[in-house]
Formats: sequence, C-alpha cells, structure tokens
Amino acid sequence: VTRKVERALISVFDKTGLEDIGLFLKKFNVHILSTGGSAKKLAEAGCEVTEVASYTGSPEVFDGRVKTLHPKIHGGILAVRGNDKHEAEMKSHDIGPIDLVIVNLYPFEETVRSGADFPTCIENIDIGGPAMIRASAKNNAAVAIVTSASQYDMLKEAMTATGGCTTPELRKRLAGEAYARTAAYDGAIAKYFAGSLTQDNPDYKPVNFPNVYLPMRPLKYGCNPQQAPASLCSLGSNPLPFSVLNGTPGYINLLDAINAWQLVHELKKATGRAAAASFKHVSPAGAAIAKELTAHERAVFDIGDKPLTPSAQAYVRARNADPLCSFGDFAALSDEVDEATAMVLKVEVSDGIIAPGFDPAALEILKAKKNGAFIVLQADPTYAAPDLEFRDIGGVGFMQRRNAALFDESKLENVVTKNKDLPAEAKADLILASVTVKYTQSNSVGYALNGQMIGVGAGQQSRVDCVKLAGRKVTTWFMRQHPKVMGLKFKEGVKRQERVNARVRYIEGDMTELERVDFEKLLTEVPKPLTKEEKDAHMKTLTGVAVSSDAFFPFRDNIDHLNRYGVKYVVHPGGSVQDAQVNEAADQYGMVMAHSGLRLFHH
Amino acid sequence: VTRKVERALISVFDKTGLEDIGLFLKKFNVHILSTGGSAKKLAEAGCEVTEVASYTGSPEVFDGRVKTLHPKIHGGILAVRGNDKHEAEMKSHDIGPIDLVIVNLYPFEETVRSGADFPTCIENIDIGGPAMIRASAKNNAAVAIVTSASQYDMLKEAMTATGGCTTPELRKRLAGEAYARTAAYDGAIAKYFAGSLTQDNPDYKPVNFPNVYLPMRPLKYGCNPQQAPASLCSLGSNPLPFSVLNGTPGYINLLDAINAWQLVHELKKATGRAAAASFKHVSPAGAAIAKELTAHERAVFDIGDKPLTPSAQAYVRARNADPLCSFGDFAALSDEVDEATAMVLKVEVSDGIIAPGFDPAALEILKAKKNGAFIVLQADPTYAAPDLEFRDIGGVGFMQRRNAALFDESKLENVVTKNKDLPAEAKADLILASVTVKYTQSNSVGYALNGQMIGVGAGQQSRVDCVKLAGRKVTTWFMRQHPKVMGLKFKEGVKRQERVNARVRYIEGDMTELERVDFEKLLTEVPKPLTKEEKDAHMKTLTGVAVSSDAFFPFRDNIDHLNRYGVKYVVHPGGSVQDAQVNEAADQYGMVMAHSGLRLFHH
Repeated sequence: VTRKVERALISVFDKTGLEDIGLFLKKFNVHILSTGGSAKKLAEAGCEVTEVASYTGSPEVFDGRVKTLHPKIHGGILAVRGNDKHEAEMKSHDIGPIDLVIVNLYPFEETVRSGADFPTCIENIDIGGPAMIRASAKNNAAVAIVTSASQYDMLKEAMTATGGCTTPELRKRLAGEAYARTAAYDGAIAKYFAGSLTQDNPDYKPVNFPNVYLPMRPLKYGCNPQQAPASLCSLGSNPLPFSVLNGTPGYINLLDAINAWQLVHELKKATGRAAAASFKHVSPAGAAIAKELTAHERAVFDIGDKPLTPSAQAYVRARNADPLCSFGDFAALSDEVDEATAMVLKVEVSDGIIAPGFDPAALEILKAKKNGAFIVLQADPTYAAPDLEFRDIGGVGFMQRRNAALFDESKLENVVTKNKDLPAEAKADLILASVTVKYTQSNSVGYALNGQMIGVGAGQQSRVDCVKLAGRKVTTWFMRQHPKVMGLKFKEGVKRQERVNARVRYIEGDMTELERVDFEKLLTEVPKPLTKEEKDAHMKTLTGVAVSSDAFFPFRDNIDHLNRYGVKYVVHPGGSVQDAQVNEAADQYGMVMAHSGLRLFHH
Repeated sequence: VTRKVERALISVFDKTGLEDIGLFLKKFNVHILSTGGSAKKLAEAGCEVTEVASYTGSPEVFDGRVKTLHPKIHGGILAVRGNDKHEAEMKSHDIGPIDLVIVNLYPFEETVRSGADFPTCIENIDIGGPAMIRASAKNNAAVAIVTSASQYDMLKEAMTATGGCTTPELRKRLAGEAYARTAAYDGAIAKYFAGSLTQDNPDYKPVNFPNVYLPMRPLKYGCNPQQAPASLCSLGSNPLPFSVLNGTPGYINLLDAINAWQLVHELKKATGRAAAASFKHVSPAGAAIAKELTAHERAVFDIGDKPLTPSAQAYVRARNADPLCSFGDFAALSDEVDEATAMVLKVEVSDGIIAPGFDPAALEILKAKKNGAFIVLQADPTYAAPDLEFRDIGGVGFMQRRNAALFDESKLENVVTKNKDLPAEAKADLILASVTVKYTQSNSVGYALNGQMIGVGAGQQSRVDCVKLAGRKVTTWFMRQHPKVMGLKFKEGVKRQERVNARVRYIEGDMTELERVDFEKLLTEVPKPLTKEEKDAHMKTLTGVAVSSDAFFPFRDNIDHLNRYGVKYVVHPGGSVQDAQVNEAADQYGMVMAHSGLRLFHH
C-alpha cells in the first residue's frame, strides 16, 4: 500500500543532491536520522537531524564500525507493519519504524583503481551500509530504499504526488535496484579477492566469477531485429575502453570495431608500423601496415596521386585486399587519423571507424560522411583488457584466459626449412598475416604481400578449404594487376565502387547474362574475356607471398596448393604428425617456413 | 598472524557435517554461540552452546529478524584486535571477540525454482547471515569465515596443525570465498527482482546484470593452449543443461556441442522429424532430418544395406553434406540415440556426440570409440535457456536477447513469387536450411535437398560469396552421384574416409602431382579426369533444391547464381530496396520464393 514517510535514515558517501533531498523531506515533516558527514551537511542546510548513535543510545565504539548494526535500526527497518505482534514489540522497545532509507556506498572499485594496498582496500569495505540496504529492500512492502542520487527525482515525484508517501511500485523498483547495487559491490570485492589470492598462489581457483554487466549504451537490437533489448555494457564499474564521437553504432558494428581495434593495436605493437584493418561480419576483409605505394600500386588501387601518410597507406592497402567485400566496412587504425587518411575514407562506402585519435580536420571530414551517420569511435590505447573472458551460449557459461599472446618476430625464430632467409619485409608480412588470422573466424589462413593482406580465408571447416578459399581471393587480387583488367575503359561518371566490382566480376568471369549486360553498359569498349591461359600466365608472375595459418598444416597438399599462389614464406604453429612431410614439401619449393608454436583459433 | 579460536558463532542452513565440526571445536574448548536449529542440533550432539539471544541479552523480537544484528555480535566480529582503544571498549562493554563464524545461507535460487510466489521469495532473503559473513570477511585479519560445509576440512586441517588456530592464509582465502558467496546470493536476488519488475512493466530496464559464473568443469584450455585456465560454468546456480557420460570435452568441442544441440532441438520442434547435425569449428558441416534413403542414396553415401532408423537416416544425411569437412565432427541428435545410429557413427571418424538420451547398447558402442575417449553428452531436452545472453570481448560487455525465434512453416507463408507451389518436402527443406544457417557463422547461405543440407556457405563477407562458396559444395555433393565417380574402383582395404576424400578430390580435379600419385595408388583402374562438359551436363540434372539465406539478397545476381545449382525453392528475410528486382529474377526461373521477415545473423 501507499505509505506515509514519517522517519528516514540517511547515510551517503555521494553527497550529490543531499541538501536538496533533506529540505524536501523537511517539507513533509520527516524525522531524519543520520550519521557523520551526512548528518553534518544536512544540519548545515537547515534540517533537523538526529544522530544515529544518540537515537540507538548505544555507545559509539570501535570507531563507529557497528553504529547502525543495532536492533533499534534494523528492527525499525525490518519489523512487519500491520503485524500486531511486531507493532506491539516496536512500541514496548521504543523502536520507531523507519520508512525511508537513503544509503549509498563508497565505490570499492575506485579504491582499487586508486592503487591502494590490500589492507586499505579491505578497510574500505562497507559493512553497515549494505546491511541497511539489504534489510530495507527485503522489507520493500513498507520501506523505500534509495541507493543512488540518480533516484532522488523518482522519490520526490512519488512523494509529491501522494502528499509525502511512497508507493508499492516505487518501493519494489528501488528494492530491485538496491540488490543490483549490493550484488555489484560484493562482485567487485570478490573479484578483487580472487585476483589477490591468485597473486599469492597461481594455482588458486576462484569459487566463482561474479561478472556484473552495467548497461552503458542501449542498442537498437542485438545480432538481429528480433533480439531486443540489447546493450553495450561495461564490466564491473570499469569504464568502456572507447567513446562514441559520432553516429549510432549497432551490435555488429561494435563486434567489428572491438575486434578490429585489437587487431591493429597488436599489429602496431608487433611491427612498429601504422596498421589498418577493414572488417565485415566480425572477420577482417583486409588488414595492412604502412608501406609506401608504388606508382603501379596507385594505379591498381585507383587512388591517383592523393597524398598518403603512413596511416593512409595502411588503410588503402587494407581496403584493397578485397575491395568488393570491404563495401560498407568498419575501419580501424592503430594511429591518430590524419586528414590524408580521412580523405581516403571519404570516397569509400564505409560504416564507421575506430582509432586512438582524430585530428580535427579529419574528424570533420568523417563526421560529414553518410549524411552525418558515419560512426566514429575513439579507442583508449592505454586500456588493458581483463585477463579472463566470459560468454554464455544457450545458458552455458564459458570462461577462458584471453588470447593475449603477441605475435611478433620472436614467433618466427624456429625456421624448419633448409632455406632460412627471411628478409625484414617478409617477417613483417608473416606477422601481419598472423595477427590477421588471430582475429579471423576459424579455421583461417591468410596471405600477405608488401605489407597488405591479399587473401583472407575465414570460417572454413577444413584447412585445405581455407587455403583454397583465400587462394581464390589472391587470384582475384593479383589479376586486378593484369593489363587487360587495368585497361578496362570505363565511361565518365562510373562510380568508384562500380569500377571495383566490375573489375572483380570481369576477373571471376562467371557473369550471368544480365550481369554482362550491366557490365558492358559501364564501358566505352567491350573487352574480350580473360582466358584461362592468360590467367595462368599472369599468376605465374606472382612471387614473394607470405602465408600464416591459424593451426598446423595437417598434410603436404596445403603446401602444394600454396605454391600455386606464389607463396615463398610460411608460418604455422607446427605440431602435426605429418610435420616432416609438410617441411619436405616446403623445401621442394624453396620456401622458408617457421613454426610459431602458437595456435590462433578464434571463435 | 596465527590466531587461537576462542569463540565461534554458528548459524547454518545446510547442516551437513555440523555435528562433526561442533565436536571438533569442542575438543579445542571453543565457546560456541549459535541460533535456532543449528544450536539445537549442536546441543543434541553434545556441544555446549550459548544461544545468541541470551548472549546479547537483547529481547527476541520481530520473530528473530534482528537477532544477530547487534553490536555485541558485530562488535565481536569487527573490533580490531591489538588496537588498544578497541580492546578496551570490548572489555568495558562486555563484548567478547568472535574468532570463527560459520554461516551458510538458504540458497535463494532454490526458493525461486520451487515456484514460490513473490512475497515468499522475498521472505526467504537472509539479512542477518550476509551481514555476519561480510563483517567477518572484512575482518579476516582476525576472523575466519566459513560459508560452506565443503570448507570444513580446510578449517579442521589448519586448526589441527596449529593446535586450534587459524592462519592468515586460510582466513584470507575464506574471506574471498565469502564475498564470492554474498555476490552470488545478491546477484540471484537482483536477477529475480529484475525479472519480476520486467514482468510488471515490459519497458523496465534493469540497472545492471549480475552474472555469476560458477565453474563446473575445468577445461584443459580455452580456444588455444595458451588460453588456460578455462572452465565450463553454470550461470548462477542453475544446473548445466547437459551431463558428460563419457570422455573429456574441450572448449571448442563444447562450443560445437551446444550450438549443434540447439540446432537439432529446434529443427525437431519445427519439423516434427528426427534431426541430426555434424559440427566443425562452430558451424555445421551438415545437418538433416529423417527421411528414408533410396537405394541410389545408399550407394552414393557408401553405407550398404545397414538398417537405418529415423535418427540414423538423419545422421547419415547430415554427415554426407560435406563428408570431407565432417571428418572429426561433433554430432548432435534430436532424439534418443539408438543402436542403428550408433552403428553408423561407429565407422566414422568423429569426436563426440550430444543427444537427449542413449539406449544402453548404443551407449556401449559409442563409449568404445576412440579407445574410450569419444565424448558423449546427454542434453536435457526440457531445459530453457535464459532470455538474455552475455559475452565480453576485449573487456567490453555485450548483452542481447537470445535469438529464440523458431523457424517453422509459419515463416514460409509470405510467398512473393508467381509460383506459389510449396510441397511439404520443399517446406521441410527450407526449414532445415533456415535452422541450419541460424547456427552458422554469418554471412551464410544453405542449400538443402531431400531432408539434408547439401551445401553450407559459412563466414563470408559478401552475400554472393556465400552463394558461390556453398554452390561449389553443392557441385561437389551432386557430382558424387556422377557415374564416373560412383564407378571409381577402389582396391580392397581402402578405408571409408580415404574413399570419401578420393572421390571429392577426383571431382574437384585440382590435384597436385603428389596427390595424383597417392590417388592412383588407391585404385585398381586409373579413371579419366571429369571434363568440364561432363560436369556441366550432370549439374543440369540437379533440380528441386531449397535455399535459405541468413539475410536478404541485395541483388538479383544471387538468384542468377542459385539457378545454376538446380534451386527451385528460396527463403530469405526480404527487405532489400532491390526486392522487386530479386523477385523478378526468381519469377524468370519459375522459383518459389518466400520472405520470412526473420534475419538470422549469428556471431
């Protein structure tokens, strides 16, 4: 039922709005009990306040550690209203009912983040506060429990509308949010203890993992429209490792953004060069590191004489791994986005970007894309993700250590072939391909050349299917450099993406009748189809390609296939029973192959 | 420091081992305070016990709701030992230090599971217990807090070794586990409140989501060996929805198993027929529903005249979508596994199976596979997964509603083509293809025929790439029925999987030199290669294929390509700006196409 607030207990760490709520309660002649700093502030504001210690009549002992842990407080909260026995006991023991409790807690996580030592963190654990919160929430049939200053308006509204009462709906909602608060509070403490116990003893196994997801940004829906509600959340009270500068990212945008960001951040760390990625459906369509473009490459990638900074070079290369798939991509850059990079993005169809920073001119250009809807996320490059990661599928929970292994040059030291000549650029390409497959849905195999991915084979169920799938992409990529393709004569006004698609379809050659009609409409001159012989002859000129596989090659046929795509450098984890046979194949082709010892499955 | 236990407070719901621990403490002359049922049981066992009410001298009011919420109890727990002021205050107020607290809570989740109403669930929330647990854990410098009977041995061991003391290491560990317990307890309460508030008002947005992962089964590692520790967890205290009957599943096995189980469970619900799936790397290599095999199919699938029950039919079909990829698969069956199904699995290379039941003979056959290492999981078919699902990536949390939409016949009602003739078997195939893509990494397109998947295109970044990738698989699948393939003459003793692989490689035709040598070794007679003309002519005889796409077809080229693979029935969500053009294409080929309105992205 609706209940008049006669007596309130107030004890808050966060004093936002405290005076205001005190004076509001005063208007309704509410008897205020309070403690310490809260009592002082309320009194100063002109409220009449009774100190809890004087109210309970209990001596102030143990530096106030047990002030509110008293039957007079907890009885006043917990006694069942309307229960004759309880009412009589309240009277006979001079216990007044408490109708409203306003308590908020010093956030434990902040103590931890401040770098305090173990005893200090523990000293900061609140005991009395959570006890009152929990008791009040339990007795929500009679008591309203306010645990955050953000709830004051809700309280004031209800009390104003009812002449100083609280409603059952309000009290139930506040009770739910009170337990949400204590759950989060104890979750943070438990996590801290588990971390400390694991530090004391690496073999220690925590009894559980309390993960509190705090909604930070509602999303329109999840993977699909029928999957609402959905939300981006922070874990515990940790801030999100990025901020939204522009646009309204969706669920899949964010999956792409976070994976892409991890990829470029690691790639930069491992190579020291600016890195870029172009994501679609939670796998990279392309990725690359900075490397000057030759005049030939500028022509193939159709970018004319645009000025290119290292970041811009990286994105042009990433976007040109598979420009057809990159249509509507999510881009990621390891470095601050400069104007040159923004100018490259300006003319591409793209959904959004994540990067550690944006120069003002670049940001203006990006914000103007898609009629202002282009998504711009700023990542915090200093953020370190937690060690353990969690997911649930069909109601089953999975915990694993994050795949934090950095794929750098040290993973290329174990060369198992006779040819051991790994030039610096080949190393960079192998690292690029490896970091890329690390963030590609498994199984995956990636081909790289000149600091750019040229074929990413994702999501296949057999190793050799990945090799071939990515190999077909490499063929398309390299055939774009064939004179007949570069010589296609487009009419004036044909758009960039139309040219990209037309070239790819011309290379693939399997156009339908209608596609052919449309294709020919774009051109001033109808080209002859590419013959198999022309393709084969051109592909034979491809050399120096680097390949990484997310798991070992089980049989030599993989190497035989790789050889068809000009592959010279290979890295895979090794460890197959057939390693000797696979090594022998690589030796036959004069390849340089390293065993990284590092499997990179990604799901 | 190591501290002698002089006084203990015991108040437990779970009375396992209570008498034993009471008598153990008696040996060390520990003064026991206790309440209600715990006190009674301890006294009966021969312990000397002081009732808390008589110890505090506080009247027993409000039906005992505030019994332990008393300065004499909380002071005894929280007073800082060795602090002169606190020590003096303890003395002057006759507060004895409490060195050991044994409190466990009635699991809130059990009250909820029992179907109790809201007031009963709330009435069961413990207030005094968590307050004592939290206070004791805070003061772990002096107090040991035992929250589970499973910790008694640890306590006894420490006290025995030290002549009745507790060590700082033990107390810290127990404190950490105490907060883990209260976090889980309040997490369960907060979840319950959030559910109830959402029921009251569907627009209610919970302030957070406390997900407590409870490790149920340690795993050797996660996705990769460097990702240890890893664990299978239950969410809250919900039991896992399956049990392990045999083998030691790994992380990726379990990802496969849970996805595969959801697929077959839904497929059975939607079609009423026994369903099977064959998973590899978290996507289905194949899936199928029960349908009698023709003599021709028996020959193509190389299973002779084995007796086949509906479940066995379904698995044979699922396995034969892409038998090369299904090598080492994780199998799932919607129905109890009978002996016929087990006999089919017996001769296949497979990692494990999940099903709702196993007949004893089938279980024996399966347990014997892989020298006893074959994984057998029994799923609980009555289990309903929670509504919301969570994951974290790189430290960022994602919440979304589970994709609970069932793809059944009702999703095929909106036929948008002139031809509206959807026979029952075509409907079944469209449902099969749709439920399959629902559990396939996106983008995905699936082709089905005769109750079985014949091409699953997974994990691609453009729609038409999926159409083509899966189309190539359909080609391989249908070419297995070409007389030249069926006529391959294998030598005696060539293994089943070797025959499967050899046929596929013969069809694909792109064998390397060495592969060709190995291939010819398997045969008594070297066949001529399949010509393009032979392939084309054979493919023209494929008809009646059903296709589902996890998102709409953006352009008509997809339909043009589908027509090359004998596709007659199509379902996709619809909603593209080009829908009219896509419909027109389908009409040109006389296809029957439905718009489901249901997007099925899966990541």
